[in-house]
Amino acid sequence: MTIRRLNEAERALALADLPGWSADAERDGIRRRFVFADFIEAFGFMTKVALLAEKSDHHPEWTNVWNRVDMLLTTHDAGGLSQRDIALAAEIDALLG
Amino acid sequence: MTIRRLNEAERALALADLPGWSADAERDGIRRRFVFADFIEAFGFMTKVALLAEKSDHHPEWTNVWNRVDMLLTTHDAGGLSQRDIALAAEIDALLG
Repeated sequence: MTIRRLNEAERALALADLPGWSADAERDGIRRRFVFADFIEAFGFMTKVALLAEKSDHHPEWTNVWNRVDMLLTTHDAGGLSQRDIALAAEIDALLG
Repeated sequence: MTIRRLNEAERALALADLPGWSADAERDGIRRRFVFADFIEAFGFMTKVALLAEKSDHHPEWTNVWNRVDMLLTTHDAGGLSQRDIALAAEIDALLG
């Protein structure tokens, strides 16, 4: 599968289905902040995401501070936002039930 | 145990025993970058650190990008670097064998 940057129309369509995510123009990716009850919940979530990420060989850039996880998805090989980011974001959202 | 900011002499002594860590003046904490072979190694390390952190109820601020983990330790309750950071840093270093 060719990995390429999404065009404007593709992005708009994809983000409409990912209401928790917002575009990061500077990094050409998408971001979402997740807030949990505590560190156990936050790191439990990160562990699930880690397994999904490794399985799809596509990994987030993410920061954790206690109950908070800030995630950026972008595709280095594509030079920006690609379908791989959209697919991973949808899988991550599905974890939240 | 009272948690208080370390003074200059205490910091110098503590950092001398933690050669991988450096002082972050802006955040009044200590930082270390860990680089691994791949994401599996990096996240495996993070999982170990998560267990240590939860056990001691003292959590890092950390960012992961694939094989890299950037960690900052500081103690909010003390308003800066405390003995809790030094103790956790030493436990984390011990994980690396």
